[in-house]
Amino acid sequence: MASLIEPRVLKGFRDFLPAAEIERRGIAERVEAVFRAFGFAPIDTPALEYAEILLGKGGGETEKQVYRFNDSGGRDVALRFDLTVPFARFATEHRSDLTFPFRRYHIAKVWRGENTQRGRYREFTQCDFDCIGTNSAAADFEILLIMKEALAAAGAGRVTIRLNHRGLFNRFLQRMDAAAKSVEVLRAVDKLAKIGRDGVVTLLSGELDGERADAILRYVETTGGWDETLDAMTAASGGDNPDSQRLRALRGFMIEAEIADTFVIDPAITRGLDYYTGIVFETLLDDMPSIGSVCSGGRYDNLSGLYTRESLSGVGSSIGLDRLIAALQTDGRTAARETYAELAVICVDGERGGLYQRIAQRFRAEGIPTLVFLEAKKQSVQFAQAEKQGIRWALIPPSGAPDGQVTLRNLKTRQNTAGLSVSAAIDFLKFSKKNQKDETGTRESD
Amino acid sequence: MASLIEPRVLKGFRDFLPAAEIERRGIAERVEAVFRAFGFAPIDTPALEYAEILLGKGGGETEKQVYRFNDSGGRDVALRFDLTVPFARFATEHRSDLTFPFRRYHIAKVWRGENTQRGRYREFTQCDFDCIGTNSAAADFEILLIMKEALAAAGAGRVTIRLNHRGLFNRFLQRMDAAAKSVEVLRAVDKLAKIGRDGVVTLLSGELDGERADAILRYVETTGGWDETLDAMTAASGGDNPDSQRLRALRGFMIEAEIADTFVIDPAITRGLDYYTGIVFETLLDDMPSIGSVCSGGRYDNLSGLYTRESLSGVGSSIGLDRLIAALQTDGRTAARETYAELAVICVDGERGGLYQRIAQRFRAEGIPTLVFLEAKKQSVQFAQAEKQGIRWALIPPSGAPDGQVTLRNLKTRQNTAGLSVSAAIDFLKFSKKNQKDETGTRESD
Repeated sequence: MASLIEPRVLKGFRDFLPAAEIERRGIAERVEAVFRAFGFAPIDTPALEYAEILLGKGGGETEKQVYRFNDSGGRDVALRFDLTVPFARFATEHRSDLTFPFRRYHIAKVWRGENTQRGRYREFTQCDFDCIGTNSAAADFEILLIMKEALAAAGAGRVTIRLNHRGLFNRFLQRMDAAAKSVEVLRAVDKLAKIGRDGVVTLLSGELDGERADAILRYVETTGGWDETLDAMTAASGGDNPDSQRLRALRGFMIEAEIADTFVIDPAITRGLDYYTGIVFETLLDDMPSIGSVCSGGRYDNLSGLYTRESLSGVGSSIGLDRLIAALQTDGRTAARETYAELAVICVDGERGGLYQRIAQRFRAEGIPTLVFLEAKKQSVQFAQAEKQGIRWALIPPSGAPDGQVTLRNLKTRQNTAGLSVSAAIDFLKFSKKNQKDETGTRESD
Repeated sequence: MASLIEPRVLKGFRDFLPAAEIERRGIAERVEAVFRAFGFAPIDTPALEYAEILLGKGGGETEKQVYRFNDSGGRDVALRFDLTVPFARFATEHRSDLTFPFRRYHIAKVWRGENTQRGRYREFTQCDFDCIGTNSAAADFEILLIMKEALAAAGAGRVTIRLNHRGLFNRFLQRMDAAAKSVEVLRAVDKLAKIGRDGVVTLLSGELDGERADAILRYVETTGGWDETLDAMTAASGGDNPDSQRLRALRGFMIEAEIADTFVIDPAITRGLDYYTGIVFETLLDDMPSIGSVCSGGRYDNLSGLYTRESLSGVGSSIGLDRLIAALQTDGRTAARETYAELAVICVDGERGGLYQRIAQRFRAEGIPTLVFLEAKKQSVQFAQAEKQGIRWALIPPSGAPDGQVTLRNLKTRQNTAGLSVSAAIDFLKFSKKNQKDETGTRESD
């Protein structure tokens, strides 16, 4: 007899069992519905690409984490480690077939051989949405609005989106004669929330004299209302300019769309990446700011520099689905169930599976997902199993004629309603579902 | 200046642009809705696993095609080449956490370094659904019913599901004293549709004497109605037995569920794989039988033999989504559109993006996906772009007060309806959509 192999997954990889997968998909589907409602289209790209395409010609931090190997044809290939680089390649390769401005979303797995000790996974889902081929303020605004809507749809509760402009910050640094150190300054400031003011001072003092380090801290710590803060930032960066005008235009859009409450201007938001050139933003959950940003991004003016000399600008954002789901679970805002079924048809006689499916089909046709039990175990066992899977209702089918009367059982209250025709049972369930939803609606808006 | 990298994908890999991806997802989502309606739950497993888990300890045909490499920790890993092997590993590993019978579906990418010359891809989507932990006829029947429903939901038109029983065929071979050659016989018969009667005779004559080869051909070519064919098969395999009883029970279920028309008993269906032990089935599109089976599977009694000595039996099926979509495209049954948006809000003034989004939000809230144009180009240019993307309606927003009247334009008929409030425009569109759907409904049922 062959020896057995121990069933196990690689470190940093995960199986998703039904309850976890139903929850994960529910959130992804609600977010996706928002993208679609805004006219964003889905695309897909290969998991495996030429290593050169993904990594460019240089090396760097990323390269160490990438799953890279030679395929059987000797090609140097790698698994994608994000969705941005493949999108840049995609947009360049297909630019003559796309309609610009091009709005796309992409929800897909990526792979990084990260240190798993920090609670990171080597396979995880990214959820990116971008609008490229336009530099308009309206595109910036649309991405911000989608963030607000998508997080609401995901059940994230109240959020605050913190907004800044890289260009404005660079103008300020230039005026301070600190532009040569802008990368180091941006990275130091980006750590403010994590390492605190003193930490940032220490980092900055390694790069600049104390006076300029102080001025930078004063700039990023500007407080007050939107207009006041923006006025101070504008003055510090040498007066009115296209970047301050962009922030002012966005503010106007927010007011006209009646959503200004969600947005805060925050000169401390820089995002670490070199990549961004315009607005940058992060999103905190008002109830759980400690988990950090669940949705971030910004505007860039050269997406495809590796592949073409034509510059392709755009604005995009990425929802940290894994982090968001973890946060919602901590907060008890998700409900575990192992199946989509809302009704279980009890098996009274193992030879009448045809009838049970015929009855179930009538409920399914009315939008009520229905699981049919397959074996004639004791009814109490079947009830218990249905309840365990998160099913609310059971139907006891007729034991005689196919069109005999049925009984509905509420598995929560253990109440039976007997003597129903199938049509009456369907109406009964639809009515109960509607009432249940109304109740839930009331509870949520309390 | 760094030299550019040519943007391209690996041979056998594909990008999906919006129109293709919207179509692919539409079909997958409709199929998935059927799985959910039957109480089948989604799961997910890693793309990358230990090579030993996926390939067992031996080698074989499969191994040559697998993407296999050492990760940076020196582990021997591989990309999954199907969803069955990971499911076997999953079911064994998590058996104490699953509710049995366990019904799962899994729609996901798999990778095989196949010869791309035969029009095969190296990355493709599989769509599997299985019910494990039960040997009941009701489980077999449920899988068959889901196949019928899922293909109908995918828009496949009329299908015929061809059903056989491996056990019955094995009894027949045993009675003929040909059981020692059963693998070769099954594989030869499996090629009947491809290589014809003479081809099968030639294959069989290499294994068995002419008399037995003839008898096998007569068996697999049994024709007639269901009862007649089953009676002949039963007699040829030595009289009534549990396998013939299983086929008879399934026939009874089909009649009671009023779906017997879709199913044919066909003794020539064997499926090549050693794996199956009970019923086996294939599905042909009645309008396009030449493309071969779009949904196949069967019952197996030892899913997890590599990992455990406990036997885990079940029944499952797999939809060939790529093949099905290709068939529907050939048949002109799919409609290309680049966006989910049904309405485009025209940009009259680039500074009023806030207002345009506020108007669009009212349509989105009513279930009408709405794209907002971002730049104030000529209206004719905006109309043309919306139409090109497959959007049916345009809205010309007020140029004065935010609550001014709007105009709706039907981009197909080029008819304008002016002087509408936003509420009236919403009602107008909903009414038009309803009428459109009714028309489509009528056309489809013609």
